Amino acid sequence: MKIVVVLSGGLDSTVLLADLHHKGHDLLALSVNYGQRHRLELAAAESIAKDYRVPWHLAHLGTARELLGGSSQTSDDVPVPHGHYTDETMKQTVVPNRNMILLALAGALAISRKADAIAYAAHAGDHAIYPDCRPAFTEALAPVFVLADWRPITLLTPFIAWLKADIVRRGGQLAVPFERTYSCYEGEAEHCGACGTCVERQEAFALAGLPDPTTYRLAHA
Amino acid sequence: MKIVVVLSGGLDSTVLLADLHHKGHDLLALSVNYGQRHRLELAAAESIAKDYRVPWHLAHLGTARELLGGSSQTSDDVPVPHGHYTDETMKQTVVPNRNMILLALAGALAISRKADAIAYAAHAGDHAIYPDCRPAFTEALAPVFVLADWRPITLLTPFIAWLKADIVRRGGQLAVPFERTYSCYEGEAEHCGACGTCVERQEAFALAGLPDPTTYRLAHA
Repeated sequence: MKIVVVLSGGLDSTVLLADLHHKGHDLLALSVNYGQRHRLELAAAESIAKDYRVPWHLAHLGTARELLGGSSQTSDDVPVPHGHYTDETMKQTVVPNRNMILLALAGALAISRKADAIAYAAHAGDHAIYPDCRPAFTEALAPVFVLADWRPITLLTPFIAWLKADIVRRGGQLAVPFERTYSCYEGEAEHCGACGTCVERQEAFALAGLPDPTTYRLAHA
Repeated sequence: MKIVVVLSGGLDSTVLLADLHHKGHDLLALSVNYGQRHRLELAAAESIAKDYRVPWHLAHLGTARELLGGSSQTSDDVPVPHGHYTDETMKQTVVPNRNMILLALAGALAISRKADAIAYAAHAGDHAIYPDCRPAFTEALAPVFVLADWRPITLLTPFIAWLKADIVRRGGQLAVPFERTYSCYEGEAEHCGACGTCVERQEAFALAGLPDPTTYRLAHA
């Protein structure tokens, strides 16, 4: 199957890429620069795609800060909240309609390159704060991709019912280079260790019982 | 109702803006620069939004030519086909997944500005060549917008069953400044008169029985 993988350069989408690669699919990776604070993930995505010899595409969403404003991830005025990922404050990290935008762009690439499917790595841990990571959102979007072109496109979300620890476990089996994935919302070279995604990342390795190769500025208590 | 209108600067979306404005809604207009050959429509959109005193937002999709390639409207290598809009050759003007991308961006604006709805001007004449203008596509997309945020957003497509002549007629009733709307796929200052949209535009005025104020380089026979 020819599949466009939405690759952020974070842990989840990297394991997704590795898993689909392992299954022998013909892959294309798409990353999107939407002015995110954590732009370093794009360099991670490029290097990971290269590793797996998957053609990498980068789309730029200019002036997206205006459209996507009000989130800590697209506005310099909103600080990145620290603490646990499921805290109410984490809603400040929500970029409005991000997944529909990313998937619509992936759809364009899938149509123009005649791919059969689009894959993205939404997982169960995201549901509480991201409306567009809910299974109901994905289920609603799938029929749209069937109609977006004259030829149907399948929307694959194999991790939708998984916890992040399950993704780490699967990544471990596939020898994913975790140390080269980038999660931190602060966007500095070193993972901060204190923002929601850093806390979640550390917990996932602990729950999976795997060593976390990430260097954190501040290790989670 | 607070509504984000997808405003291309062409005839259809301008009449939609005028119609919703006439009905007293609180409007925001969104145009998208996706590297289209007919970029002049963006200047038309800006000036029309200003006329109606509607705040105008422009989103830029950089490097979209790569994603959206293979269409005459995003590639310099593919010439704009001349002839009737419903001819097979007109499929070359299809920009892959354009409407999902535009609507996803409109969704982001609607979420960040707390709008209740998104409106776009897909009409019955588009169905034959644009998969993403089919009523089934719109019907599939509506439930996605209900779930894209914690607060539901309504997708409005009031022209979905109208012919372009019906839109021209409605525009006539509302005294829409047709001469300032821009349709031509060639993208020159003067409408070419020969590309699919120019042919369709001329026909719509003729069918509506209204004078066409557009200057065409080449009038349709």
